[in-house]
Parts: sequence; C-alpha cells; structure tokens
Amino acid sequence: MQTSSSQVKVLGILGGMGPLASADFYLRVTELTAQLMQAQNDAAHLPIIVWSDPRFADRNAAIFGTGPSPRDEMIAACRKLVLAGAQYIAIACNTAHAWWPDLVQALPGVPVLHIVDATLAALQREAPQAKRVGLLATVGTLKAGIYVQRALRSNTRIDWLMPDSVAQEALVMKGIRAVKAADLALGTACLEQAAQELIEQGAEALIAACTEVPIALKHSLFSIPLIDSTAALARECVAHGFGLSSPLAKAQFCTE
Amino acid sequence: MQTSSSQVKVLGILGGMGPLASADFYLRVTELTAQLMQAQNDAAHLPIIVWSDPRFADRNAAIFGTGPSPRDEMIAACRKLVLAGAQYIAIACNTAHAWWPDLVQALPGVPVLHIVDATLAALQREAPQAKRVGLLATVGTLKAGIYVQRALRSNTRIDWLMPDSVAQEALVMKGIRAVKAADLALGTACLEQAAQELIEQGAEALIAACTEVPIALKHSLFSIPLIDSTAALARECVAHGFGLSSPLAKAQFCTE
Repeated sequence: MQTSSSQVKVLGILGGMGPLASADFYLRVTELTAQLMQAQNDAAHLPIIVWSDPRFADRNAAIFGTGPSPRDEMIAACRKLVLAGAQYIAIACNTAHAWWPDLVQALPGVPVLHIVDATLAALQREAPQAKRVGLLATVGTLKAGIYVQRALRSNTRIDWLMPDSVAQEALVMKGIRAVKAADLALGTACLEQAAQELIEQGAEALIAACTEVPIALKHSLFSIPLIDSTAALARECVAHGFGLSSPLAKAQFCTE
Repeated sequence: MQTSSSQVKVLGILGGMGPLASADFYLRVTELTAQLMQAQNDAAHLPIIVWSDPRFADRNAAIFGTGPSPRDEMIAACRKLVLAGAQYIAIACNTAHAWWPDLVQALPGVPVLHIVDATLAALQREAPQAKRVGLLATVGTLKAGIYVQRALRSNTRIDWLMPDSVAQEALVMKGIRAVKAADLALGTACLEQAAQELIEQGAEALIAACTEVPIALKHSLFSIPLIDSTAALARECVAHGFGLSSPLAKAQFCTE
C-alpha cells in the first residue's frame, strides 16, 4: 500500500478466530474511525489488511495440552500481513493472546497491540471505581491467565471473579460456541445468565473478554458496566493508526 | 494459507471503497456461510484475505474524466491478494467494476466474480416477473453502464429506471456520501425517498446497486422487492469458495 504518501499506518488484523468476531472487529474499527476521527469519506479511513484464517489450530485445546499449537501458523500469518504492508498488528481474539509474546518476538519492529492493555484502559475510563471485575472469557483465556497476569504486570489491582466450572462450560463456552455457529439467540441467553451470576457474586464491572461475547450481548442491559474488549482494541487501533496514542488511551479519546 | 489441506478456496476481497461497505460485505459472507453451509465452528468457514485500501483514486471522478484512474492501484492490490494466497477475487464496490475487464486481464487464471452477474441472478430468484427495474447506484456506475451493459451481455431483458439528474445528486449521491460519513439516518432518509420516486415511476423491483445502499436500507420496507448487490455477491462468494456454483446460482441455493 502507498504508505509513504500518508501519515496513517496500515493495520494488519489477524483474524478468523472466529470469523464472525473478526468481521465484527473490522466493522468496529471502521465505525470508530468515523466516530472518533469524523471521517467524512473513504480516504479518511485506515488502510487495513485482514487475514482471516479459520483453520488455525484450536486455541483452547492447545492451552490445555490436548491439541497442536497454533503458534507457528499465527507467526506465519502475521509475517504475511507485514509482507503485504501491515505496519502494526491487532489480534481479533482474546485467547490467541496466549501466543502474543511469541508474535512480538517473531516480528521485531512491528507493534502488536495487546487486547488486555486496551481493555484495562477501557476499564479505567468506563468503570474507574470497580475493584471486583467479572470475566466472561474462554476456558483457555482463563487457564492461561491472560487477563490476570497482564493486569498484575501493569499493577492494576483487581479482584477477579470467574464463573464456577459448571457455569463456565454450560453458560459461557456454550454461549461462545453458539455465536460461532451464528445462533445469536442462544448465545445471548447463555451469556446473559453467566453475566447475571457474576453480578450476583458481587462484580462491579464485567469484561466481555472474548470477541464473540460482545456480539451476543450488544443489546443486553446490565446493572453494572460491561467493558467490551472488541471495542477497546478497535479504539487502540484507530489511535495507533492515526498516531494519536502512545502507549494507550490519549486524552483526545477520553472526552467523547 | 494452507490451501492444499482443504477443498475450500481462499477468497480475496478488494475493499476500502468504501470501508464501511467492505466491512459489511465481509460480515455478510461470514453470516451467509453460517446460514447456507450450516457452519457450526470456526473451521467450517472460508479463509478470507481483505485488502481494504481507502486511498484508491476516486472511481466516480475517474469515470467522468475529472480525476486519475484507480486501475493500476486496483490491479496491484489484487496481485498482492493473489500473492498472499487468494484463489478468487470479489470487489466490494459496484462502481469499481468499471475496471473489472482490466482486473480479469491482469489476473489470468484467477476468477474475479462480477457483482452484476450475482445481482442479476438474485433478481431472477427474488423478482422473476420484474421487467421495470430501478437502479440505486452511483453516478459512475450509471455513466459507465455497468448494469445495463452486463445485462445486455447476458441477454437479460430489463427496462431500466434511473432517478432524474436532480434526484440522483440530491438523494442518491447525498445518501451514499452520508453512509460513507457514517450518518446512517441521513443516508436512509435520502435513499428511501429515491427508492420511493422510482416506485412511483413504475419500478417493479429495485436494485441496491452500490454497496453503501443496503447499509442504509437494511431496515426499510418497500412495496416491491429490493435486490441487494452486497448480499448477492456474498452468496456467490460462498458458493464459489465451497465449490457449489458454476457459473452462478446453483439449485442448492435456490431452495432456502
């Protein structure tokens, strides 16, 4: 792409995990560009390359040691994105961030935004008082400690609440799989119930910590803030692409 | 991408014209895959590479001879898609099909689906009796005769209705530009009025012949069928990717 003639950066999206979540993420980046940058025409948007490969090895199985790792496939896909012109990378899947350190190491000089950093910044903006935070995430994201460890690293003090193992499988994972199968009614029912259980356990904010979750809950109303990891990462992509944020959540973006 | 291990083909989407329409198109391909192929998980979807470059030269200006041609940029982008692994191409913009013959010539052996072929097939399925058909399209699409000439080529007999020059500018183009600026309320108001005028002129079916138009009219109700070029092309992408259609609109897809 003709990056030399423009100050904006080319975004590479590593997607396909799942496909609907990737399409939703790309849509959100575009909508947020229109909203935050007042883009009035095509040329005011970011150049974007999406690599949507639904055949990456299953992330949850790999994290639990019951299936092959998608690591090498993800690195190869990111290298293709960079070869095609991408100047920074976003991964449209929370669970895939278990391999974020591998991608960073394999792509020297290419920023790979971290969805948890973006989401924790959104939590700070949207629910600054919340200490007890519920996680709606895949079993792999929970097992790998993607949110917990990243929050510790950034000294964000949070008491994490997670569904018990029965609710995690029968509500959260069932709901995520329903979204992947495009059964949004079932996905919404399962995930709303999981959210409600976390609220009853004392959550002061919830994180939709899987990119399938916001698709199911986009029309849902809760008594506490729901922080949307898809929207948070999309916002950071817009900020980074237009050179507005370094490292995260610049003042321009806090006033909307 | 690992195409050798799978029978599905890798779809390359030439996008960015505009960005919201491209995101909408990618979403439709994904939703239609879930619907038509009963995709239950990630791996049942098509691998897709999206090249969304909003900096292509303005297609309408080029067609009217008042601006540079996007031809060479579009060819270069398609070659990048093919180099990255795309095995067939869809262009998520009706007006850009003015350069469809150039792309076909530049990409020997790579099918480039034609949005008008897909849309005329949808017209046959959804409004087989319609003879007077209204076009909601850009000035460039009308000026280049993209629909009229392609229909003649396929011996499809249609009496085309187009808005008069005042309505074309004050309603259709204004509505399309509003969608590009993410002002969907204005886009809907303009395009609904343009549609209504064509109905009053005797249209028996309407074609949303610009990929911004279905975004604005997705909740609109009309007394005659509205044929959606975005959905039509998405359907052909699914059919082609899974090896179901050759050349267009196989019986499997007529029974839903």
